[in-house]
Amino acid sequence: MIVPRLIERKRDGERLEAKEIRELVLAYAEGRVPDYQIAALLMAIYFRGLDRDEMNAFMDAMLESGKRLDLTRLPMPRVDKHSTGGVGDKTSLILAPLIASLGVAVPMMSGRGLGHTGGTLDKLESIPGFRTSLSIAEAEKQIARIGCAMLSQTDEIVPADRKIYALRDATATVEVIPLIAASIMSKKISESLTGLVLDIKRGSGSFLPKLDDELELANAMIDLGVRHGCPVVALVTAMDRPLGHANGNALEVAEAIAVLKGGGPPDLIEVSLALGAEMLVLATLATTREAAHVMMKDAISSGRALLKFEEIVSAQGGDPAVVRDPSGFQPAPFQASFDAKREGVVQSIDPRAIGYGVIALGGGRRNMEESVDPSVGFVITAKPGIHVRKGQTLATIHARSKEDVEVGRSTLEQAMVIGDSALPALPLVSHRVTARGVERLA
Amino acid sequence: MIVPRLIERKRDGERLEAKEIRELVLAYAEGRVPDYQIAALLMAIYFRGLDRDEMNAFMDAMLESGKRLDLTRLPMPRVDKHSTGGVGDKTSLILAPLIASLGVAVPMMSGRGLGHTGGTLDKLESIPGFRTSLSIAEAEKQIARIGCAMLSQTDEIVPADRKIYALRDATATVEVIPLIAASIMSKKISESLTGLVLDIKRGSGSFLPKLDDELELANAMIDLGVRHGCPVVALVTAMDRPLGHANGNALEVAEAIAVLKGGGPPDLIEVSLALGAEMLVLATLATTREAAHVMMKDAISSGRALLKFEEIVSAQGGDPAVVRDPSGFQPAPFQASFDAKREGVVQSIDPRAIGYGVIALGGGRRNMEESVDPSVGFVITAKPGIHVRKGQTLATIHARSKEDVEVGRSTLEQAMVIGDSALPALPLVSHRVTARGVERLA
Repeated sequence: MIVPRLIERKRDGERLEAKEIRELVLAYAEGRVPDYQIAALLMAIYFRGLDRDEMNAFMDAMLESGKRLDLTRLPMPRVDKHSTGGVGDKTSLILAPLIASLGVAVPMMSGRGLGHTGGTLDKLESIPGFRTSLSIAEAEKQIARIGCAMLSQTDEIVPADRKIYALRDATATVEVIPLIAASIMSKKISESLTGLVLDIKRGSGSFLPKLDDELELANAMIDLGVRHGCPVVALVTAMDRPLGHANGNALEVAEAIAVLKGGGPPDLIEVSLALGAEMLVLATLATTREAAHVMMKDAISSGRALLKFEEIVSAQGGDPAVVRDPSGFQPAPFQASFDAKREGVVQSIDPRAIGYGVIALGGGRRNMEESVDPSVGFVITAKPGIHVRKGQTLATIHARSKEDVEVGRSTLEQAMVIGDSALPALPLVSHRVTARGVERLA
Repeated sequence: MIVPRLIERKRDGERLEAKEIRELVLAYAEGRVPDYQIAALLMAIYFRGLDRDEMNAFMDAMLESGKRLDLTRLPMPRVDKHSTGGVGDKTSLILAPLIASLGVAVPMMSGRGLGHTGGTLDKLESIPGFRTSLSIAEAEKQIARIGCAMLSQTDEIVPADRKIYALRDATATVEVIPLIAASIMSKKISESLTGLVLDIKRGSGSFLPKLDDELELANAMIDLGVRHGCPVVALVTAMDRPLGHANGNALEVAEAIAVLKGGGPPDLIEVSLALGAEMLVLATLATTREAAHVMMKDAISSGRALLKFEEIVSAQGGDPAVVRDPSGFQPAPFQASFDAKREGVVQSIDPRAIGYGVIALGGGRRNMEESVDPSVGFVITAKPGIHVRKGQTLATIHARSKEDVEVGRSTLEQAMVIGDSALPALPLVSHRVTARGVERLA
């Protein structure tokens, strides 16, 4: 294998063979190819792309570089959900216990906050004692026992992906659809799933601003799933405004618990149940999405979904008391209301500004060394399209200091626009993508 | 300086500011930016290019990373010649002593063989005892004393260029015109020249196959020269066949000495004197190229040029006896003639095949660890366009073993084509490029 020659061929728009990609990725994972050659190759891929076979070879090599969760001996179907990342998106916290409570194994491997978005691991760790760094053996045992584990990617799982992801982050080669697809799917395929539901975020708060790119990403991941015997269904959902009301780690856990108790914001419920219905149909526990909705509502109203969340929290060392009573979360020292300066209609709430605002309050990381304050954030009860009076409370700021309250206030002033009339907003769930094609839902 | 953001901007086709490029290149030279980020940037530059200001900033930063030859106190003009690389190209060996013998300081910093081409340093080292690794102080002293030094790039001179060049070689980012231009010119500007002549090779044996690219490279280097007070004249010369007869290190030195003695192949004389005339006019020692030709012919016929070469060889530890009598070179153990298999016209002699053939005989490197046998190579007396009889000797093979003679024979069989009629060949000197534009000479 002459690495400069492989780089040159990709640079010149040629295809690389599956066995060349395999050899290269494995050699890189083992430290036999230097970072700088892979960095040059990644930039060549940025400009030239990877076709479906190349992408698949890339993912297979990443999978081969590590170990998998072995869940194939479990009697239940195994389904996970993955989101491309948004602001206020706490659907994982709802769906893992809800779907597990209905008899589906949910091996949920999640990430930390990235860019302006929050991460499921950071949110879970706002529960006192909750431990997300399970070993493969621990996760396998817990899933066999209670049907769900919510964990971080360990060093054992797709190490080549960890290494390549870190390199992409440092070399401006993150935004490459086949590399994004291979990275996400390598982790999901390593969970030995029988089905996967993707939440493809759309709009100004998503990582890929163009709908075409999002559909291409969905199709790429569906293709990788099909090649590995894992059917994939993708829903395109709105991220032109934050999802739900709560933004910030503990605030979002509390809101997820509210949904598991039968309450919570309608938009969050709608997106969660739409994704959950796809999970249940993929798991063949429901024959239609309508039937799945009935099952999920029953799991919530009966308390089974909430009980499952308590079980998960207990199993992973967390304090189940906060599940029963979220007021047990340590609140931020300062709370302040944010009120409308004029009468009118809420025209927009910029999710990126809100996401970065949470980070500014200390609720996210500017670099990997920073720790996260779980208590801070925003609860934005106003939604785009609603009519507000002057002085009406639109949001509550949760902050560590008086100075931070002002930081939060200026964030909200910039992020929330009130005007004379409503502006068009994206439909909450707009497209459904499967191996058979794209279906427009709204 | 956020390096991924700089990479991203270049990736997206934006310009980088001079001070950004300076900071980045100097940080890289000092080891404060990792190879992999520069590798990604170089690949982005491959696709997006560098404009003239960016290229200039790149070169300035490389210059700033090291020391220069300080020749500004010398009373004479200081002129060098640089070739983009060819096969059988020994004009440096002729021009350094010839032009120095006429009162021009020639600080000639050269390279080793690269790809299929030979290198001036390897050729010089075929002279027993000749030392090319002079320190800056040694080179300055020698040039002050005898007007010329022929040396390798030291660790002190443009270290950023050495580092970036090695990285480009390993990451398939060599063929980028502004980077080639900045790399060459950084070394030339570090010689504190008052003028520079470029020999831009054209044809199948050159590194850039398209004339347009060669003219672009010439213009880029002229622009860098102008910005640093160093006027540059470029000649485009033929490299669709080897230059002269000799190919191989000692064989080429002997041929250069033959020219300095008033003999040698006509094509080699013509190209050498064309380049030399430009050097003398740039040095303002001749007002016209015709006058320069008269001066050079006189320096050769009077023996002054040859004497200057003896002085250089002595000064750098070499044995001047071989200059007076090149038969003093240790010959290769085996010599064999290569004869025409049919009557006809020599249609072509492929310079790449000849260059790689010399390497196959042991006269060049396949990797940087290999040593070079100075004695081996080819002396090809036949030229494209000449009529040959069956059995007529076309070339002599100089080899280390009988097996290598056969390797040489098969090289020549593939490289030399005899047909029924002559094919068109490139004019020896076809274009002259200056800051004022391109002049077609033939």
